[in-house]
Amino acid sequence: MDAFFPELSARFNALLPELLTRKLAVVGHARPDGDCIGSQIGLARVLAKAGADVVCVNADPVPRRLQFLTRSTRVLPAEEVLPVAKDYTALFVDCADGARCGHRLQGAFPRPMAMFDHHISNVGYAEHDFIDVRSAATAEILTGLFLDAGLEIDAEAAQGLYAGILTDTGQFRFHSTSRRSFMLAAELLARGARPAEAGFELYERESIGKLRLLEAFLQSLKLEAGGRVCIGILPKGVFASTGSDTEDTEGLVDYARSIDGVEIGVMIEERDNGAVKASLRAKDPVYRVDRIAAQFNGGGHACAAGLSLGQSLNEFYPALVAAIGAQLAAVQSEAS
Amino acid sequence: MDAFFPELSARFNALLPELLTRKLAVVGHARPDGDCIGSQIGLARVLAKAGADVVCVNADPVPRRLQFLTRSTRVLPAEEVLPVAKDYTALFVDCADGARCGHRLQGAFPRPMAMFDHHISNVGYAEHDFIDVRSAATAEILTGLFLDAGLEIDAEAAQGLYAGILTDTGQFRFHSTSRRSFMLAAELLARGARPAEAGFELYERESIGKLRLLEAFLQSLKLEAGGRVCIGILPKGVFASTGSDTEDTEGLVDYARSIDGVEIGVMIEERDNGAVKASLRAKDPVYRVDRIAAQFNGGGHACAAGLSLGQSLNEFYPALVAAIGAQLAAVQSEAS
Repeated sequence: MDAFFPELSARFNALLPELLTRKLAVVGHARPDGDCIGSQIGLARVLAKAGADVVCVNADPVPRRLQFLTRSTRVLPAEEVLPVAKDYTALFVDCADGARCGHRLQGAFPRPMAMFDHHISNVGYAEHDFIDVRSAATAEILTGLFLDAGLEIDAEAAQGLYAGILTDTGQFRFHSTSRRSFMLAAELLARGARPAEAGFELYERESIGKLRLLEAFLQSLKLEAGGRVCIGILPKGVFASTGSDTEDTEGLVDYARSIDGVEIGVMIEERDNGAVKASLRAKDPVYRVDRIAAQFNGGGHACAAGLSLGQSLNEFYPALVAAIGAQLAAVQSEAS
Repeated sequence: MDAFFPELSARFNALLPELLTRKLAVVGHARPDGDCIGSQIGLARVLAKAGADVVCVNADPVPRRLQFLTRSTRVLPAEEVLPVAKDYTALFVDCADGARCGHRLQGAFPRPMAMFDHHISNVGYAEHDFIDVRSAATAEILTGLFLDAGLEIDAEAAQGLYAGILTDTGQFRFHSTSRRSFMLAAELLARGARPAEAGFELYERESIGKLRLLEAFLQSLKLEAGGRVCIGILPKGVFASTGSDTEDTEGLVDYARSIDGVEIGVMIEERDNGAVKASLRAKDPVYRVDRIAAQFNGGGHACAAGLSLGQSLNEFYPALVAAIGAQLAAVQSEAS
């Protein structure tokens, strides 16, 4: 079989013997997502199986819905590793830059020995950079490297890597989803990945409170800008009244975006301190919602951005609608 | 490469020359879903490419969100084919029994020449039955047969077959999702299937009415059987009051099932004629919801079943709760 990553694998295979002699810390980014935790677990277990001494470490706790990935391999809190950081050689995964792992871990590991990532903004910061921006997930790169190297991937590593591909392709729906994503997923299933368990843990363990919150959000949806924008609001006190918490807001904005004809979906959260928080999602990167967010001291990606502002909802709402309207008009005039 | 379906493919390859001499009608089931339409389009286009004279026919119109699959190949209404049915040799797809295509088409084609299906309840009804109950989708069987036979799959056929696998695996989340599902998806992408388009058309073109219907459904959710069952109800008149239609009920039952602790999710639809329709979804095939549905003249799969009954909601609801409770108890006593 042809190699999945000919160039990266040549370099990875050359580095591997050296890696296996070190005491390794696999570091992921703060506020970890499925690709981060899955890649950390996958890399750590595969290297451990190959004989290395490895730990995983993260500045933030593993979110509830990702804890099924860390049953057999712990992700240590930064406090446990920082005092003995000098004993470890660091490998970074899914971090577009060194700061993404949090300032304390970055301070301890200013120049990792290797880094594996797929973010387009990554310009490299390790001794050995393994970047492939056409991969849908960091877990996709790692899986390909492991298979190319003939390394053993056990069932728990396979499940972590599978979860990374699943989440970072948006369940195989994003534009980044490629033939290779599916080929690698098939190989992971052959090694013990369990798609039904991953789907269940990631998407079928909602609280009834989360569904009540969704209900409240749907009820608030309003079309703006002639139906091209849809905005939903989570008013003050909604978490208490629905029995949900802030973690449950994940994915709500996608409902606002999912409506036919809507180009930009927005979720506005009214904070108890009177401030507002907003998430913006575009169907097409041409809308550059990061630029809209930037006008309110926020930022992000072309299709997904956010902001936090010390403003009342009554002040903020019309200002946001005006800013989005201006951006839609600007894009339209550029296109014509 | 090994064959995907050694036994089925041997029989399919033997039948193929005969098929290509006939005037063929590819028939799917009434109220068609993604696997039905995707399989119809896939089979029709691949056989047409191989030289056959083929049409697709269905008793019901292609749902709006599946119309991206029928841009290049029409699915004819039954009325267009029935008057000349005797000219056609029928191939059935995704129909667990001959009646699933509707009584008029069944009357016209009482014994199809071939049938392709993955439903567990299918006992065969064609001259040549191609059944594989371990396949997640009929489109999975067809894709494997086409690849095994070395038949050309063009981009539109690939997209149809991909959509069939995507929808019938619940976006690669159901227990039926296998290594083979992913291998076949990879092969379809290599032939032009477009996962981002499929994801967008299937899941990001909701009407605002659909979201209002979801809101009403969420509001109706009730836990039963100590939290192991969640039931939502769509009362008479809800489509008019929310601006939705029956097509928009797709996927609602998954919300009932998605709650942590819930084993079986149910959606009950109260029909204008006083009858009820119910969809049952289990998290684990051990619950055999097809057996529960069978007690009400319904049927389906171990994890996904449905029924239609001339009963009032007030009669049906307690009977269903009792039947589900008995099934949960039976499974529990078997396990202990």
